[in-house]
Amino acid sequence: MSIDLTYSADVQALIERTRAFTRDVILPIEDEHAGDITAAGGDALRIGMQRAAKDAGVFAPHAPIEFGGHGLNMSDRAPVFEEAGYSLFGPTALNIAAPDEGNVHMLAHIANPEQKQRFLAPLAHGDVRSAFAMTEPAPGAGSDPSALTTRAVRADGGWRINGHKWFITGADGAGFFIIMARTSGEPGQRGGATMFLAPADSPGIRVGRHIDTLDRAMIGGHCEVFFEDLLVADDAVLGEVDRGFEYAQVRLGPARMTHVMRWLGAARRGHDVAVARVAQREGFGSRLGDLGMIQKMVADNEIDIAATRALLVRACWELDRGESASNATSIAKTYAAEAIFRIVDRSMQMCGGMGVSGDLPLARLSREVRPFRVYDGPSEVHRWAIAKRVVGSAKREMRDAR
Amino acid sequence: MSIDLTYSADVQALIERTRAFTRDVILPIEDEHAGDITAAGGDALRIGMQRAAKDAGVFAPHAPIEFGGHGLNMSDRAPVFEEAGYSLFGPTALNIAAPDEGNVHMLAHIANPEQKQRFLAPLAHGDVRSAFAMTEPAPGAGSDPSALTTRAVRADGGWRINGHKWFITGADGAGFFIIMARTSGEPGQRGGATMFLAPADSPGIRVGRHIDTLDRAMIGGHCEVFFEDLLVADDAVLGEVDRGFEYAQVRLGPARMTHVMRWLGAARRGHDVAVARVAQREGFGSRLGDLGMIQKMVADNEIDIAATRALLVRACWELDRGESASNATSIAKTYAAEAIFRIVDRSMQMCGGMGVSGDLPLARLSREVRPFRVYDGPSEVHRWAIAKRVVGSAKREMRDAR
Amino acid sequence: MSIDLTYSADVQALIERTRAFTRDVILPIEDEHAGDITAAGGDALRIGMQRAAKDAGVFAPHAPIEFGGHGLNMSDRAPVFEEAGYSLFGPTALNIAAPDEGNVHMLAHIANPEQKQRFLAPLAHGDVRSAFAMTEPAPGAGSDPSALTTRAVRADGGWRINGHKWFITGADGAGFFIIMARTSGEPGQRGGATMFLAPADSPGIRVGRHIDTLDRAMIGGHCEVFFEDLLVADDAVLGEVDRGFEYAQVRLGPARMTHVMRWLGAARRGHDVAVARVAQREGFGSRLGDLGMIQKMVADNEIDIAATRALLVRACWELDRGESASNATSIAKTYAAEAIFRIVDRSMQMCGGMGVSGDLPLARLSREVRPFRVYDGPSEVHRWAIAKRVVGSAKREMRDAR
Amino acid sequence: MSIDLTYSADVQALIERTRAFTRDVILPIEDEHAGDITAAGGDALRIGMQRAAKDAGVFAPHAPIEFGGHGLNMSDRAPVFEEAGYSLFGPTALNIAAPDEGNVHMLAHIANPEQKQRFLAPLAHGDVRSAFAMTEPAPGAGSDPSALTTRAVRADGGWRINGHKWFITGADGAGFFIIMARTSGEPGQRGGATMFLAPADSPGIRVGRHIDTLDRAMIGGHCEVFFEDLLVADDAVLGEVDRGFEYAQVRLGPARMTHVMRWLGAARRGHDVAVARVAQREGFGSRLGDLGMIQKMVADNEIDIAATRALLVRACWELDRGESASNATSIAKTYAAEAIFRIVDRSMQMCGGMGVSGDLPLARLSREVRPFRVYDGPSEVHRWAIAKRVVGSAKREMRDAR
Repeated sequence: MSIDLTYSADVQALIERTRAFTRDVILPIEDEHAGDITAAGGDALRIGMQRAAKDAGVFAPHAPIEFGGHGLNMSDRAPVFEEAGYSLFGPTALNIAAPDEGNVHMLAHIANPEQKQRFLAPLAHGDVRSAFAMTEPAPGAGSDPSALTTRAVRADGGWRINGHKWFITGADGAGFFIIMARTSGEPGQRGGATMFLAPADSPGIRVGRHIDTLDRAMIGGHCEVFFEDLLVADDAVLGEVDRGFEYAQVRLGPARMTHVMRWLGAARRGHDVAVARVAQREGFGSRLGDLGMIQKMVADNEIDIAATRALLVRACWELDRGESASNATSIAKTYAAEAIFRIVDRSMQMCGGMGVSGDLPLARLSREVRPFRVYDGPSEVHRWAIAKRVVGSAKREMRDAR
Repeated sequence: MSIDLTYSADVQALIERTRAFTRDVILPIEDEHAGDITAAGGDALRIGMQRAAKDAGVFAPHAPIEFGGHGLNMSDRAPVFEEAGYSLFGPTALNIAAPDEGNVHMLAHIANPEQKQRFLAPLAHGDVRSAFAMTEPAPGAGSDPSALTTRAVRADGGWRINGHKWFITGADGAGFFIIMARTSGEPGQRGGATMFLAPADSPGIRVGRHIDTLDRAMIGGHCEVFFEDLLVADDAVLGEVDRGFEYAQVRLGPARMTHVMRWLGAARRGHDVAVARVAQREGFGSRLGDLGMIQKMVADNEIDIAATRALLVRACWELDRGESASNATSIAKTYAAEAIFRIVDRSMQMCGGMGVSGDLPLARLSREVRPFRVYDGPSEVHRWAIAKRVVGSAKREMRDAR
Repeated sequence: MSIDLTYSADVQALIERTRAFTRDVILPIEDEHAGDITAAGGDALRIGMQRAAKDAGVFAPHAPIEFGGHGLNMSDRAPVFEEAGYSLFGPTALNIAAPDEGNVHMLAHIANPEQKQRFLAPLAHGDVRSAFAMTEPAPGAGSDPSALTTRAVRADGGWRINGHKWFITGADGAGFFIIMARTSGEPGQRGGATMFLAPADSPGIRVGRHIDTLDRAMIGGHCEVFFEDLLVADDAVLGEVDRGFEYAQVRLGPARMTHVMRWLGAARRGHDVAVARVAQREGFGSRLGDLGMIQKMVADNEIDIAATRALLVRACWELDRGESASNATSIAKTYAAEAIFRIVDRSMQMCGGMGVSGDLPLARLSREVRPFRVYDGPSEVHRWAIAKRVVGSAKREMRDAR
Repeated sequence: MSIDLTYSADVQALIERTRAFTRDVILPIEDEHAGDITAAGGDALRIGMQRAAKDAGVFAPHAPIEFGGHGLNMSDRAPVFEEAGYSLFGPTALNIAAPDEGNVHMLAHIANPEQKQRFLAPLAHGDVRSAFAMTEPAPGAGSDPSALTTRAVRADGGWRINGHKWFITGADGAGFFIIMARTSGEPGQRGGATMFLAPADSPGIRVGRHIDTLDRAMIGGHCEVFFEDLLVADDAVLGEVDRGFEYAQVRLGPARMTHVMRWLGAARRGHDVAVARVAQREGFGSRLGDLGMIQKMVADNEIDIAATRALLVRACWELDRGESASNATSIAKTYAAEAIFRIVDRSMQMCGGMGVSGDLPLARLSREVRPFRVYDGPSEVHRWAIAKRVVGSAKREMRDAR
């Protein structure tokens, strides 16, 4: 037989442990903090939840085994991360929240042994948090990374970095930064970027205000960060000079997919809350769950969940084969970001006045998931990239056929 | 010529004064309070803004002329309220925010002269606020008003009222309540309701918690309210005993439409903010405003705005002719609630990361308008009512044809 | 009172006569031809139906009174045309089918007295049909009229015209052509076009194949037309030389709206057929009309019908005031073309297997209305134009504010 | 590694052979018949195409190896059927068109050895066609199969069958019928159905009119069929008496999925045609393929194709494991039927006037795929079933939790 969608027994067991842990241990903690889920409750709570995750044998499913993780590939992460995402605090508990999870992934692929020891090890163990400093305010690197304006210039024995970043998730309280800076070329050119590693307490790193975004739950917020004559030594270069955009791709594809996994879990929680409610309540003389317009919303949620999962399976499999999978991840991300929003929005609608109130978690879920249609590349940018590829390849075929 | 969509010169002048007042005077105040728009800034701010509106000659466009208003009919209210709604604080400034605006409308139609003097006059002048206490937690009066459970029973020289309400907009700080209570029949029966007027400081009225809803800007919040052996005299009855459901219709149709007017103004502001931004910014080597996917969102917003306005014109005209207009108002409300949400959501999307942040007003607008798909009858309930009418009338025609 | 949506008593009577005539006289004829509605049954049938329409006092509602019509303005045409459009053959019967109706409109505005006598009079009376020859195959005049390639060059005492047109509605059997040709400038320039009038039997006019379109009911088909050294005299010029694009606008705005009126009637028939069926049938143990997903489709149809009508009222009123109304007609056309398709598509879906069969008129209606999203400017082109205007005006405002 | 989406080398080779065969051999034949694709060109053409398919080694990929097929499971059928579906005539050429393909599947699972020899063998080889006679006009078996009214009553040595069927695909020219008839119970009960096998020339089988459906390409049409005192012997019973509904499930799940596979191929052709065109053409001064609204449609097509395929992978895998997969097949069918329609509709729109004409295959593709939202269970019925399961299971959980 060719196609196989079975998870190994080990992975299956981890899925179930994660499911139980998230629902029994973490969800009650989230609900306690329902009135203020800002920054996932902060680092003190994070440390406690992570200890519990370690005890439950579900901590760091993505991290390499030598750094205390379960070493799951992308395909196997999908169902585990989805279970963790069922609570907004679940990813923090398992140490698989953005951006740390993506940083672990990238460091495992690109860092040298010393860097792994110094930065990856404590990150994988949850001893520190981290931030990935790429996005800049207009006209800098936003949807179009090549617009990068932060600069690193040669300085004695290293580099001097200056620049202004924003929407840097987790910056407040991070232990170190991965910094994307231009080492050659000009804004608009698709080359010349380098990644640097720098401890957060390096002179010249200043974390500014938390941007007041619709979503609230990211630990460490989305911050402005300023690099003001930050000096780093040569060994701060992650990988090689001028290959930063290439490395960013190593991070971006998988990071898009793990975002999808986590938010899919959150959407499922919203759906479950709504279904439980309509199963229970009556309206207009019949059970809400028997009313057709409600049934349509329930079914559309099920379809959106199934399609998101199915697209995720495909994209993860391509990533695990070592492909760039940029088309598959763009498709899965775009579909998922819109589907997840629809699922939560319908769930809210199914619950009427309760749905838009704090008495159910739906309104807060809707705030958390909406920005995902913008973060990690707005839907419009992904569609633009998808179409470019298809039309471009049609043009080439026509040219070749002449 | 038959059809005429021209506003009279007086109304046109009022539209323009309202437009200038809202943008020049009120919008800066809203933006000052951007970080916390809760309860439209509170009653102190309200009183100041209302004084300014009086000075600008734009106060109380809906109130009867004898009570200091401009006496506009529904058709003429549409463009004026839309202009006021351009700021979330505008309706409060003009004294046309929910629920006061609808209460003025209803009292003008139903109250007797003494009640008008005692309740309508101060309300129309902005001396007090009011609340309309109808909605109850399940299984009471929600989407289906006939489920009303709050009871008023005969007591010496009046009535004793007991019941539990929620989502009572403006309750905290209101000067008086209009209370919907069952005086005969049982929950589920479409008759037997009566409306009562009671000062807020009457013993037996207790305002509970503010329900923590997605929207924030309503002055006085959405509260739980408890009536515990509230005693009212016979002259507290608004209109006649047992005709409450009928009176509620007098309020509901127009109230739906004024909600649409105000939120349409808010949606237009969102749209304008987004258009200004895309007109300004570049991305991918061309002005954002020249990119097709952005243009599609801009055009879809324009279409949604035009269709909402056009449906409003129709429904208001029917109301002004004295028709119940329940079909036209259901159609306009359902379309508008969804269109307004789409407009703000697209505007947010057009602005990317800025759009979901507090640096632009879009994220907060999106929170304010989302619940309108639930408030004033969820879209599903309106669709159900619309379909019932059409299919019912088809059935009657077929029966008659036999 | 300002806004008024009442029709005059005369117009109201004409609406009702048209309604009765279309349903009692024309619909049975259409249904007889259900198996083959090609070209509305041909000219013999047309002549008979038009005689009946004259007898019923409903013929040519749009034509000037001096040419035997009712002289309705755009606002009053809307409900009359909608009633006629209830049958696919109705517009032909009333002589208000495309393109004749638009040609009557344009000739009434632009032709000189001799041209009116020679071309408009017989057209208005139904003695001949006509065609408007503008659209060309790529890379000629399509969505972008300025790409016009057909050329008229000065010849002895007149002009020699050469060019290739297609999608020329009604060409087969037309008595005369209105021809759009370039008299100066180059393809791509927004000037230099002239309109010419030419009898169909002029040497040098060749009507080619009928293009096999999804829709079938247009009398005279959608044809290719070739102008091969067609000689016309100077008095064949309609209006003035080089003002053709300007005149085209006179025709296009109103023609878009009359298309909407007619197709809206067709959509309403589809809706009525579906509602009658769901009112009658049972499924899963309850009347289909009581099932929520069916109710949703019924209600969405009602909303789409109401919004289309409301947008039409607005655009027609602007046109009647003598405005170009290009934004209002673009908005109404775009919304309507999509709404009309949705209405018919949902109606088909409500009827299940019957819906997609020839046992009900829905499948054939769906074929007729689909191309309207392309004809008269594809939705994408209208959206592009709408967005251009809005963003352009935002840019100007910002510039002025500096 | 757990998840694997690789096809075996044999299957991969068959996919590629099918791709080449369909495009090089069959598509030119379809395009020759473009003006009239009725009944896939008829049986003479079918026999020729099937001979070619045998020569190309791509015939009967689904049939058991002992009956001359390739014996593919559902997972492996997906990409092969999709390639064949790229031409409307492809499935006929490979002998995998509905209903024969589903009948082969069912007979392979349920028929006894004699029945296999007599019916399955010639069907698998393409010597005869077949029909599956289940659907009845209202109020009989339609979306709700339990409404079955056709009856089989005991007769001497066998059964006497009376009933009226319609929408029986392939009936005209079929060699034999599989007949669903009620052997016990009453319409509305979910038991008591039996399947019978009967040669088409049996006295008492009468094939009525072809129903004039929007789609045209099904060989043998969609016909009415009458059973009038049809006598069959006991050995005509397929499987066991009274287990017909159960067997129907064996057929229905896979048949839904193979429909999706084939129509997905057709949708992809539509998409490819449109992409080729926009890659080639210019409009408004730039390549259409660079215009954002076109890019959006291209990208949305890609997303819909990817999601359909991904849902198919999931459902087929469940079916191959021997699960009923009724939820997964309902989800995949519902999503796919709507997505496939959207893909073709967008493709048509991208091509403007050409798109709705016979000059491109898009208009005819749109007619073929539209009914799939109705056939094999309307979307509404599948959504109803999906919601029932979810809400029902929520109710059980709540009951158990008490």
